[in-house]
Amino acid sequence: MASSMILYWGSGSPPCWRIMIALEEKNLQGYQQKLLSFEKNEHKSEPVMAINPRGQLPSFKHGDNIINESFGACLYLENQFKSQGTQLIPDSSAEQALVYQRMFETLTLQQKMADVIYYTWKVPEGERHDSAVKRNKEALSAELQLWEGYFQKMDAGSYAAVKYFTMADVMVFPQIAYAFRFGLSQEKFPKLEEYHNLVKERSSVQASWPPHWKETPQGMEILKDL
Amino acid sequence: MASSMILYWGSGSPPCWRIMIALEEKNLQGYQQKLLSFEKNEHKSEPVMAINPRGQLPSFKHGDNIINESFGACLYLENQFKSQGTQLIPDSSAEQALVYQRMFETLTLQQKMADVIYYTWKVPEGERHDSAVKRNKEALSAELQLWEGYFQKMDAGSYAAVKYFTMADVMVFPQIAYAFRFGLSQEKFPKLEEYHNLVKERSSVQASWPPHWKETPQGMEILKDL
Repeated sequence: MASSMILYWGSGSPPCWRIMIALEEKNLQGYQQKLLSFEKNEHKSEPVMAINPRGQLPSFKHGDNIINESFGACLYLENQFKSQGTQLIPDSSAEQALVYQRMFETLTLQQKMADVIYYTWKVPEGERHDSAVKRNKEALSAELQLWEGYFQKMDAGSYAAVKYFTMADVMVFPQIAYAFRFGLSQEKFPKLEEYHNLVKERSSVQASWPPHWKETPQGMEILKDL
Repeated sequence: MASSMILYWGSGSPPCWRIMIALEEKNLQGYQQKLLSFEKNEHKSEPVMAINPRGQLPSFKHGDNIINESFGACLYLENQFKSQGTQLIPDSSAEQALVYQRMFETLTLQQKMADVIYYTWKVPEGERHDSAVKRNKEALSAELQLWEGYFQKMDAGSYAAVKYFTMADVMVFPQIAYAFRFGLSQEKFPKLEEYHNLVKERSSVQASWPPHWKETPQGMEILKDL
């Protein structure tokens, strides 16, 4: 099964990481993979463009089936390999509701993190404003406080949606890890840090940990003053 | 079943519309609903804030289960009422892959439309730049051309992912309808217009058509020159 899959990915990209965690959780080790460099523009290379007209990573193929969107690929894997490995979408309606809610809230967190972290990359020099940087940081800080609050209300040792690891964690954990990599304060966000410590030891997460993070343990401190 | 559901919604909002289409497709007519006014700030009112700390529409509750994210709510409804009404996620792996891919690409289209349509609402006056407006419009135009190309490659009369109506249509149709409402050219996007004409007659879509669009058939022509 796994040998008919190929994943093109970039190190540290939360969307790529999600698919890699889902593949590990579903016991689909042994898939083909190609680590590409964003810096060298390899996400615009021919093998990627052939299956992904957006020229983005992740790009993912299973047999003839192409699903490049990280949420789509993870849901596809859960559906196609439902009884294999970890069940990522719970059966009970109450737990399912929580998982779906937190999964998709991750997209808002992702957007607000991108607005801060990639500001100078996305906004041309002549269009940059300190007021925009300040507003984006405030919006991200409020978003992270919302998540900190979610964890505060849950029992110690809980995962992002329920007491055990689900698709909500597949989605949000890489985002949280990314925030700490970019300097998020453990003192200001103690519950997020607890969650980070809990999930980072998980074998699916360890097996897919971004390789360049191992070499250079700390990223830029863009989020330090949030 | 449906009577234990309540949806707080705003007229014309694609995320709200998605849930309403899904409810119709799953034969869940008779749910409680409350049409709220964004202009009057009713999305920040107490009943909404009680189930949605973001103070956004849609806000949706089924019994005690709260799922406010439109993608999450639609997937929840499909999962909870799998054998009722329209099957929105196909069984075959090839079709499932296509549906998941197009579903989540909708989020990029949504983001690029928001960047254009809400520019003056989102960006304070002193931070606005004609160059940004131009770039956002070009990005949206390229995005819509990508979708136009998807439909060109499909058989006539196809839906957004496969030959029949699926969750991909629940997600993307409100976005396409919104684009035409805001002046998108039928001449430049003939396949999108064909798709728009095909789906707008569907009973689930007719039953949930934004009420204020009936009163004022054409919106602002922001997208006319794309």
